[in-house]
Amino acid sequence: MIKMQNSKFNFKIIEKDNKTMARAGRITTFHGIVNTPAFTPVGTKATVKGMTPLDLKEIGAEILFGNTYHLHLRPGEDTVRSFGGLGKFMGWDGQTITDSGGFQVFSLGQKKIKITEDEEETEAKLVNIKEDGVEFRSHIDGSLHTFTPEKSIEIQKKLGADIMLAFDECAPYPSAKEYARAAMERTHNWAVRSLKAFKSKDYYSWQQALYGIVQGGIYKDLRVESAKFISNLPFDGIAIGGVSVGESKKEMRDVLDWVSPFLPENKPRHLLGIGEVDDIFEAIERGIDTFDCVIPTRFGRYGMVFISAPEGNLKNKFRIDIKKSVFAKDKGPLDKNCNCYACQNFTRGYINHLFRSSELLAYRLASYHNLYFIVNLVKKIREAILEGRFLEMKKKWIG
Amino acid sequence: MIKMQNSKFNFKIIEKDNKTMARAGRITTFHGIVNTPAFTPVGTKATVKGMTPLDLKEIGAEILFGNTYHLHLRPGEDTVRSFGGLGKFMGWDGQTITDSGGFQVFSLGQKKIKITEDEEETEAKLVNIKEDGVEFRSHIDGSLHTFTPEKSIEIQKKLGADIMLAFDECAPYPSAKEYARAAMERTHNWAVRSLKAFKSKDYYSWQQALYGIVQGGIYKDLRVESAKFISNLPFDGIAIGGVSVGESKKEMRDVLDWVSPFLPENKPRHLLGIGEVDDIFEAIERGIDTFDCVIPTRFGRYGMVFISAPEGNLKNKFRIDIKKSVFAKDKGPLDKNCNCYACQNFTRGYINHLFRSSELLAYRLASYHNLYFIVNLVKKIREAILEGRFLEMKKKWIG
Repeated sequence: MIKMQNSKFNFKIIEKDNKTMARAGRITTFHGIVNTPAFTPVGTKATVKGMTPLDLKEIGAEILFGNTYHLHLRPGEDTVRSFGGLGKFMGWDGQTITDSGGFQVFSLGQKKIKITEDEEETEAKLVNIKEDGVEFRSHIDGSLHTFTPEKSIEIQKKLGADIMLAFDECAPYPSAKEYARAAMERTHNWAVRSLKAFKSKDYYSWQQALYGIVQGGIYKDLRVESAKFISNLPFDGIAIGGVSVGESKKEMRDVLDWVSPFLPENKPRHLLGIGEVDDIFEAIERGIDTFDCVIPTRFGRYGMVFISAPEGNLKNKFRIDIKKSVFAKDKGPLDKNCNCYACQNFTRGYINHLFRSSELLAYRLASYHNLYFIVNLVKKIREAILEGRFLEMKKKWIG
Repeated sequence: MIKMQNSKFNFKIIEKDNKTMARAGRITTFHGIVNTPAFTPVGTKATVKGMTPLDLKEIGAEILFGNTYHLHLRPGEDTVRSFGGLGKFMGWDGQTITDSGGFQVFSLGQKKIKITEDEEETEAKLVNIKEDGVEFRSHIDGSLHTFTPEKSIEIQKKLGADIMLAFDECAPYPSAKEYARAAMERTHNWAVRSLKAFKSKDYYSWQQALYGIVQGGIYKDLRVESAKFISNLPFDGIAIGGVSVGESKKEMRDVLDWVSPFLPENKPRHLLGIGEVDDIFEAIERGIDTFDCVIPTRFGRYGMVFISAPEGNLKNKFRIDIKKSVFAKDKGPLDKNCNCYACQNFTRGYINHLFRSSELLAYRLASYHNLYFIVNLVKKIREAILEGRFLEMKKKWIG
């Protein structure tokens, strides 16, 4: 059955900051709305680690990010589809976005392994890149798979997220310019093919939108070329890839400075894989509407919990290591300005004890707090944009 | 500061079954009430694994069980006390009970280790039992500790649970009668000393009750002797120990049949370490008011989830292994008669996926369901006793 394509998908800018490119807007999808800027918690395998959908609602999340690579391998897109798509499968009635699978194919394929103390060698090649697509081996059982733009779109249609991403190649960091150009050109070809596949096939009863992805590594001319190319295609939104693999925060800012002038203002912009406090301010300042990142839950599981300004600052990266013995007798909350369930009900001392005892509740409370912290920081930034005090707020947090 | 001892502690029988020893009652402690029979979730290290106190309230738990041995080693009773006692430390405003530490000292001290495929040898002796008390090494860092009745009571007073247990020796299973008698006699001496320590020392600003523990292994005359001895002491309640270490369910029933006639009817009776569906019915039938067990959360983490009659029965032990591939596409809830959050919001297929992906949410949902299942099964048994249909309900469940 063919349905109207993304007839509901819509992006509206509500307020623009008059000193920066920051903007507050609203994305409307088949399932509801996302008030932007918005942080997108990552639920790699159809679960945001340790969190229930109810937790995510309480936290204030409006959209979740799933990973096509992982869901394809387990439980498989046909299983997810048979349960009614990604949202229904995981019990989440909000909005969803899936990536194309490309990032995991490449990043897991290029994993290095230690041979001796001093030597590193690339693992038996798990990935084989061709112009048509990518052959790779499952990190679970070694089975051989192929992703092409058409295959990625087919899988994502079955997963049924509100927003899908075009298949792209995220080149490793650092890449020589020659390689970065070749990867970008493949990404452009694959973008055209992703769009074609997107428009030519059934919607499986749900309505979806498709974003194109800007690549080009750390090379200004490539990034500009990519921004122009992707912007000229009829995507519903634009994602910017390849900035989370870099090593410096300056590179992320540079890339955003280069590409932003060439992106269509009326389309939502998603930044892939970014989620630290200062990066969030810098990205929003450069016109980013949504971003996803595993940092809140991953850091949470390691006991790295976010703290707000002024206790939190660039030097301590807005976080403390709650496992440290200095917190064992601390009767204060993780963050004294936070209204989350963990901060309202538990002490640093207790959570320190939970981590030292490797208790499941440790990971749960720290992940909950970190997600609440980041989701609500972005909500507060949105309010600041609406009230014309974005730079004032940014200054208070990161100077 | 010396306070009135357990002035608030009170046990009232509300209804007795007229065909069995089953009874519905109410324990009143300093913190509130426990409607009995009641299942007591175990929070070994000041956390019921994976659960928040809010979850436990939702589930309907009224009392939690903490382990003195673990809390003494980490974070230490002085730390717990400085946070306001066990309940405040873990954010739980309901009732609490702590054991004496004896069970863990002995069970961890007697751990066997595999030497070869066929040989077993007792590990370098971690425990040294004397008439005065027990010397043991921490399973965390090997440090040397001594528990005496006085020390156990001092620790438990600092932990501040509503109900404490006298220090006892839980003899290994099987024990020769001679050893079982010696251990029982030590337990009796230690019971007298526990009571004396309980009455002679400060209450640290909270009011607590103390239960004595009946031991005696699998020997009828010893169990009867122990039941009489402990019943004659001015304890607030009676616990029955050493039945969870046996190998057969018949032994548990036998022990309860032997001791029940000698227990004072007006004191609450706690059965230590029991928590399977059939055992719960059998124990309540024999006059048990409360029991604790790690089974709901431990089984939950292994993916063994409880199912109700008639799908659940003695043969399948009222549980399924949700990890099995047969459940991968199952769109039903874990248990179709269950009203818990996990059963109302997620499918067996999804939870199967979470287990296969080793996701934290798997352990959380299965633990939540299992606790809800057992706590509410016992609540339903209570209703059945109040309405004069205990045996009818028992027959429906276990024939």
